[in-house]
Amino acid sequence: MPTLDDVTLIHRLADDAGAVIRPYFRRRIEVVDKGAATGAMFDPVTAADKGGEKAIRAVLEAERPDDGILGEEFPETQGSSGRVWVVDPVDGTRAFITGQSQWGTLIALNENGRPTLGVLDQPVIHERFIGTGDSAELHSPDGITKLKVRPCASLAEAVLMTTHPWAYFDASEQEMFRRLCDASMMSRFGGDCYAYGLLAMGFVDLVAEARLKPWDIQALIPIVEGAGGVITDWTGGPCADGGRVVAAGDKRVHAEALKYLNA
Amino acid sequence: MPTLDDVTLIHRLADDAGAVIRPYFRRRIEVVDKGAATGAMFDPVTAADKGGEKAIRAVLEAERPDDGILGEEFPETQGSSGRVWVVDPVDGTRAFITGQSQWGTLIALNENGRPTLGVLDQPVIHERFIGTGDSAELHSPDGITKLKVRPCASLAEAVLMTTHPWAYFDASEQEMFRRLCDASMMSRFGGDCYAYGLLAMGFVDLVAEARLKPWDIQALIPIVEGAGGVITDWTGGPCADGGRVVAAGDKRVHAEALKYLNA
Repeated sequence: MPTLDDVTLIHRLADDAGAVIRPYFRRRIEVVDKGAATGAMFDPVTAADKGGEKAIRAVLEAERPDDGILGEEFPETQGSSGRVWVVDPVDGTRAFITGQSQWGTLIALNENGRPTLGVLDQPVIHERFIGTGDSAELHSPDGITKLKVRPCASLAEAVLMTTHPWAYFDASEQEMFRRLCDASMMSRFGGDCYAYGLLAMGFVDLVAEARLKPWDIQALIPIVEGAGGVITDWTGGPCADGGRVVAAGDKRVHAEALKYLNA
Repeated sequence: MPTLDDVTLIHRLADDAGAVIRPYFRRRIEVVDKGAATGAMFDPVTAADKGGEKAIRAVLEAERPDDGILGEEFPETQGSSGRVWVVDPVDGTRAFITGQSQWGTLIALNENGRPTLGVLDQPVIHERFIGTGDSAELHSPDGITKLKVRPCASLAEAVLMTTHPWAYFDASEQEMFRRLCDASMMSRFGGDCYAYGLLAMGFVDLVAEARLKPWDIQALIPIVEGAGGVITDWTGGPCADGGRVVAAGDKRVHAEALKYLNA
């Protein structure tokens, strides 16, 4: 269970990362393609990603020397406490480099293999989603509001999101995803981590993604579950390791989606 | 040519529409499917769309009784001045109803068949793009900045956007668009009118869409051209009537895209 100290600390981590990352947004910055070296797909990284993770690591190394750190941009730091901070400084770098606000800083506290506290921070529009699995809140310029998914009786009434309908899916995933789309009321793409925030706010009913890393998803699990939603892998099992993930506000839509995602 | 009075008036129209529309955003509001009656695709409309257009019409009827009004939500008002105000109160209603900010209020002044002044207003994040074909500006909480597209030598280096890669394309358009995607550096979806704003800011290189109405595109033409970009139909001709539209920041990318969009 996260302590009050953990909650205070995670806010500080998000504040510090945001202060580093924010000035890079909508500036002309160098974009390095991490995929180029291996011939893999375009995989951009910038000084914002690296600077944001460094800021978070500096605080954790001072305040929590016994905890581990698993981040996207630097090698893993082993800890001895059974607690690991799982960090993606800029989730949605493609949104970031194209001037769009669907990116965010993701920070999770993982206790003995389970993410128990998560933050999705959007430092430009000043929205911060925080969840503990039991409850979740949105902190914004309008104040603090409780996050609550909305009911949705069936896939035919559902709004579905994913970041890109083919860039992150293999051929068979694309086919399953396309059928899921066709069975939903409407679909929207380009969501990145923010899609899960929209789901927790009750504006989106379903998010399906693949090829995620642990740092892409761990912070979002306590937020989605804290808002009353369901988040699993495509077989209905745990998704903290990443891979194929499906999140729904209503378990009826989740159950229906699993059928399409296991076709 | 738009006068200073026209510029003052279009700001007032955007202000008044924004004041009506803003309170509906991220509230539980009734969504009516305009497509349901005809069996067409899901085509949502809300009180925000209707209220926004009413606010604009009220000002125009008082201030410009001789001008025409062509809007999405109400029947056309014929004028006698050769000037028509072309209005989409909420372009991107799907973004609006799912809590995302890529929607905007589009207002164009059309003089003798040509849009000569355009506004894309985002009243929640307080960004207003305004263009006259010769120049274009972004008004935001950070101040007023000149809009300028970025150079991009080839499609292989271009960021491509469209609102949805299949919902608004027929089968042959989907196929051409998919090849265009595959030839670009990366693609992002879910843009709505805001994609053209990102292009005018120099963060996106190419936007391709189809099935547009005149009110979906007329306001964006003077903004894109004022920022130094090119915007035409898929054959390279004028696009003020809507239909298939392609916009590029760099004419080299535009020329290359036309080949794919006429394959």
